[in-house]
Amino acid sequence: MKLASLKDASGRRRDGTLVVVSNDLAWYADAGHIVPTLQAALDDWDRIAPALANLATDLEHEAIPRGRFHEHDAASPLPRAYQWADGSAYVNHVALVRQARGAELPDSFWHDPLMYQGGSDGFLGPRDPIPLADERWGCDLEGEVVVVTGDVPQGADRDTALTAIRLVGLTNDVSLRALIPGELAKGFGFFQSKPASAFSPVFVTPDSLGDWWQAGKLHRTLMVDLNGRPFGRIAAGEDMTFDFGTLIAHAAKTRALGAGTIIGSGTVSNCDADGGPGRPIAAGGVGYACLAEQRTVETILDGAATTPFLKRGDTVRIWMEDDRHHPIFGVIEQSVGD
Amino acid sequence: MKLASLKDASGRRRDGTLVVVSNDLAWYADAGHIVPTLQAALDDWDRIAPALANLATDLEHEAIPRGRFHEHDAASPLPRAYQWADGSAYVNHVALVRQARGAELPDSFWHDPLMYQGGSDGFLGPRDPIPLADERWGCDLEGEVVVVTGDVPQGADRDTALTAIRLVGLTNDVSLRALIPGELAKGFGFFQSKPASAFSPVFVTPDSLGDWWQAGKLHRTLMVDLNGRPFGRIAAGEDMTFDFGTLIAHAAKTRALGAGTIIGSGTVSNCDADGGPGRPIAAGGVGYACLAEQRTVETILDGAATTPFLKRGDTVRIWMEDDRHHPIFGVIEQSVGD
Repeated sequence: MKLASLKDASGRRRDGTLVVVSNDLAWYADAGHIVPTLQAALDDWDRIAPALANLATDLEHEAIPRGRFHEHDAASPLPRAYQWADGSAYVNHVALVRQARGAELPDSFWHDPLMYQGGSDGFLGPRDPIPLADERWGCDLEGEVVVVTGDVPQGADRDTALTAIRLVGLTNDVSLRALIPGELAKGFGFFQSKPASAFSPVFVTPDSLGDWWQAGKLHRTLMVDLNGRPFGRIAAGEDMTFDFGTLIAHAAKTRALGAGTIIGSGTVSNCDADGGPGRPIAAGGVGYACLAEQRTVETILDGAATTPFLKRGDTVRIWMEDDRHHPIFGVIEQSVGD
Repeated sequence: MKLASLKDASGRRRDGTLVVVSNDLAWYADAGHIVPTLQAALDDWDRIAPALANLATDLEHEAIPRGRFHEHDAASPLPRAYQWADGSAYVNHVALVRQARGAELPDSFWHDPLMYQGGSDGFLGPRDPIPLADERWGCDLEGEVVVVTGDVPQGADRDTALTAIRLVGLTNDVSLRALIPGELAKGFGFFQSKPASAFSPVFVTPDSLGDWWQAGKLHRTLMVDLNGRPFGRIAAGEDMTFDFGTLIAHAAKTRALGAGTIIGSGTVSNCDADGGPGRPIAAGGVGYACLAEQRTVETILDGAATTPFLKRGDTVRIWMEDDRHHPIFGVIEQSVGD
């Protein structure tokens, strides 16, 4: 089952309108007679999900009224959420960043997940421009996998956490790199350096992902294009040190998580085949899911970063494909604007 | 106008039922015929607030059906929120904590607010126990003032931010002190060390606060009792380095804030009359709004902290009084439980 939230043209309904989307992303059926919003569905999932699944089946059978699904009309599936907590599960990425600035990687980073609390009061739509007021902030993309949970009790273990995963999707976790060192030095984590993120046009139930979804990891290639050229083709199921069950359990150690919590993987990142830092696609590597990692590798190999951060007019595409090269979650496609 | 959200006994309505509460906190009138939840009211404030204000007037005049308001029946006014961002506006508190561990206070801390992104997916009710699984986590209270905003555009200045303040209240921002050093050392800020907070039974519009609310500061004494004894009697309008307009503008520097954003002051803290670290109430001082500050002062004066963190069965009360010693926002009253 694939779910999306259509934008409300009047702007009155901040959470959009929940729709079920066909597997090929060509059609949608309004789910408003079942439940108004995705958050409301997540709040009462056990009761609501079967009705939505029936609607999805009817949609595939063309048995109900349907409309053309246009990704441009979609908000992020949760246009706003009660929680967005982003891990850093691809420790390869963290190790590279640390190596580039000559900092030690504590051994604990391999068994204790990094996670930050992100802002969730308003997300960009998957085709919305990134509202960048100042290019000197060092705007970066971050391609990630995310899951949405149901209620998770405090102290849940990994297995319990895995059963709480309701939906899977992608994000562009926009980051302002030039603001990060100053904020982290203050000790309270990210705030201004993490503006609104965008999510994939649809979120998908794990059962619809078949073998691609295994033990809390998504075994597909994350595709990232920058200004129309391939920038990253990274295996999301590889080099993921912490699966989503582990990330959720980490988040729930001292408090329950409310239904509709979004948990992110952090920037997807692969080691190079020889174990060294990854190479750009043009150099035969799998590339990167953020500019900072390419800059980090440049710093390690060449002594200085040459790839610039995003400028106005730059475009970013983030998606994943099925075996027939059709997007699974739709495509995040954003330009950088004012 | 005073607003509260009554708990739904069935547990189905996660956001409770919005009610208008009389100024003396004795009575309530159901606002369900106007708008179902406080978040929905904030989403459409300009249209909804006048109708709620009329209801409040009718309630004061005993012109409508009313019920007895019991603070035990109240959830936090926003039982969950799309954003909870907590500042550290009383830099005196930060300076003391740094002094106790021999760390320099950067001069920038006096003009650049500290702020962290808090979890907002589920708040404790004002009379709910604090669910502490492990006393070794070093559980602490933090008495704070909070405001709730409407929509705030990206890049809003202080004056614009001040006009966006819709409601004022109090919080007990529960903190797990023993988990903080490890989390901050990882560089990503608080996560496990900040479990669910509780808010005052009612939130109040700034106009109802009269002269107590001036230029983004609340000029009343924050009262904190611990196990039935006075622990803090701190002037919230004094020693507040950053007013709420400045805190909101800080939060909105790189992204818009959605309606219903809660912004916290951080632990309320006063310098002692002689400019030194504050003294306990028993020693003639104004006391503290968190245990960590008392422990910090003990460390500075005596070389070691002797006040323990919260244990199971301990009780915390946080409130503010009007001139007749009636609580303005109701009373946060929590015991520490499993």
